[in-house]
Amino acid sequence: MERLKQQISFILEIDKLKTIYRQSLITDKSRYENDAEHSWHLAIMAFLLAEHVEEEVDILKVIKMVLMHDLVEIDAGDTYCYDEKAKLDKREREEKCAKRIFEMLPKEQCQMMYDLWEEFELMETPEAKYAAALDRLQPVLLNYTADGKSWKDHGIFLDQVIERNGRIKDSSEKIWKYVEDLLQDAVKQEYLMER
Amino acid sequence: MERLKQQISFILEIDKLKTIYRQSLITDKSRYENDAEHSWHLAIMAFLLAEHVEEEVDILKVIKMVLMHDLVEIDAGDTYCYDEKAKLDKREREEKCAKRIFEMLPKEQCQMMYDLWEEFELMETPEAKYAAALDRLQPVLLNYTADGKSWKDHGIFLDQVIERNGRIKDSSEKIWKYVEDLLQDAVKQEYLMER
Repeated sequence: MERLKQQISFILEIDKLKTIYRQSLITDKSRYENDAEHSWHLAIMAFLLAEHVEEEVDILKVIKMVLMHDLVEIDAGDTYCYDEKAKLDKREREEKCAKRIFEMLPKEQCQMMYDLWEEFELMETPEAKYAAALDRLQPVLLNYTADGKSWKDHGIFLDQVIERNGRIKDSSEKIWKYVEDLLQDAVKQEYLMER
Repeated sequence: MERLKQQISFILEIDKLKTIYRQSLITDKSRYENDAEHSWHLAIMAFLLAEHVEEEVDILKVIKMVLMHDLVEIDAGDTYCYDEKAKLDKREREEKCAKRIFEMLPKEQCQMMYDLWEEFELMETPEAKYAAALDRLQPVLLNYTADGKSWKDHGIFLDQVIERNGRIKDSSEKIWKYVEDLLQDAVKQEYLMER
């Protein structure tokens, strides 16, 4: 019963992920998306799009990774992917949060969380590369659907989006081809600027 | 590429789950929870609490189930679990939505969605019983944390909560014991009425 109580304290603590807002609008454009919804979206995408990944992947591991990858933002906040200044101390802020939150769990589950997070951050295994691809594809889809609002608000250029999202290709050439076409169209629609 | 486009249309369509609100407050009590966040919470609980389930379960299947189980509410809306009148045509409303949404997917993925939903609704397999237990445990935790606001607002009695949540026991005696203790305390704190 002690373990269960510990796990439930953690489960209630991570409810805070629902209050961490991102830079993407949801598709009805009524408000910004939060990290918990974003993580749900990635998890369901993970099993629907797996056929397009070139390397063999353990889908359960990918899903666990995307479900937990943003927990470190509960204290650290969402760092906008094109905010070069905020990215400087991102790792430090997130590590502090990981320590506080993951250590609420029983020892081996705490270790599992650290391992999943570390693997995700390194983007080296097929699972981490696929999780990273999903984490890039999803906001591109939302930003495109919202007429590029987030790109326009932050004055983002096509080359920046290509640089960040090009990593999708490491997991799936097909998904990257789809994103490339969509970005070309985003430029045409003036959702995104070219230099 | 046709399959990928079809899948992405579906992925954008189900973004609407983020606008379907439930009767539970999130833990900071600032607003009601939506279905997408709720589904994320269940999915992460699924792998953290699996050790407490008596029968052997396929965790990947449980996670898929909880990630998709509320998609049918996109058109049908959330039916409050103690609203006996709204429950009368719940199935009919949800089936109509399932047809519209699942059929956006390639044929075998559409069938997978129907199969997962049907299995979840029947609550017979170990996976469906565990998914149902999580779907009951999570709102109890949130309602208790919000000082029973949702139970108080709707004038819910202890016996109703026990009747609905007693099914948790079909999956895990230990989790049910935890919930029973929590409900006793909820009565003591006057979050929940006894007849």
